[in-house]
Amino acid sequence: MFVIVTYDVNAKRDPKVMKTLRKYLTHEQRSVFEGLITPGRLKHLKEELKRIVDVSEDCINIYSLETLRYSKKESIGKQVYHGNIL
Amino acid sequence: MFVIVTYDVNAKRDPKVMKTLRKYLTHEQRSVFEGLITPGRLKHLKEELKRIVDVSEDCINIYSLETLRYSKKESIGKQVYHGNIL
Repeated sequence: MFVIVTYDVNAKRDPKVMKTLRKYLTHEQRSVFEGLITPGRLKHLKEELKRIVDVSEDCINIYSLETLRYSKKESIGKQVYHGNIL
Repeated sequence: MFVIVTYDVNAKRDPKVMKTLRKYLTHEQRSVFEGLITPGRLKHLKEELKRIVDVSEDCINIYSLETLRYSKKESIGKQVYHGNIL
C-alpha cells in the first residue's frame, strides 16, 4: 500500500521522528513522508513512532491508500525531495 | 473528491497560503489541509496558490483521492484540528 505520513511534533522530538520515518519512507516535505510499505512494516513503524512521541502534545497522521488507481499527486513549485511513486 | 494538501513555503508567504487554503479545506496540521472539494473549486484553489507562491522556492503537494473507499486515515497523538471526513 501507499502511505502519506504528516506530523506536527515538538521540536525536541522532530529529529527522532524524522530519522525513524526515513527508515521506511521517502522524505517528501519538511514534515511529510510518503511511499510504498507493507502492512507488516507499517505496523512496526507505528510502534516505533508511538514510543517516540508524546501523545498529549504531538500529532502524526497516516493516510493509507490500498491502491493508487484512484489517486493523483500534483505539485506546485519546487520538488525538494523526490518521492515519485504517486 | 477528497484532497490532502501539504506545503513547505517561505515563512513570508505562509500566512497567505494558509488563509487561501482555509477558504477551501480543513486545517489539519500546521502545513496540512484536507477535505472534500469539487474539481472546479480545486482548479480555482490551484490558480490562487500559483499566484501566491514562488515556484523556485516553495513547494505545495496536492494528493487527490477520487474515492475514499480504498483509503484510511489513522492518527497517533493529539488531533489539533478536526478533519473527520476520512
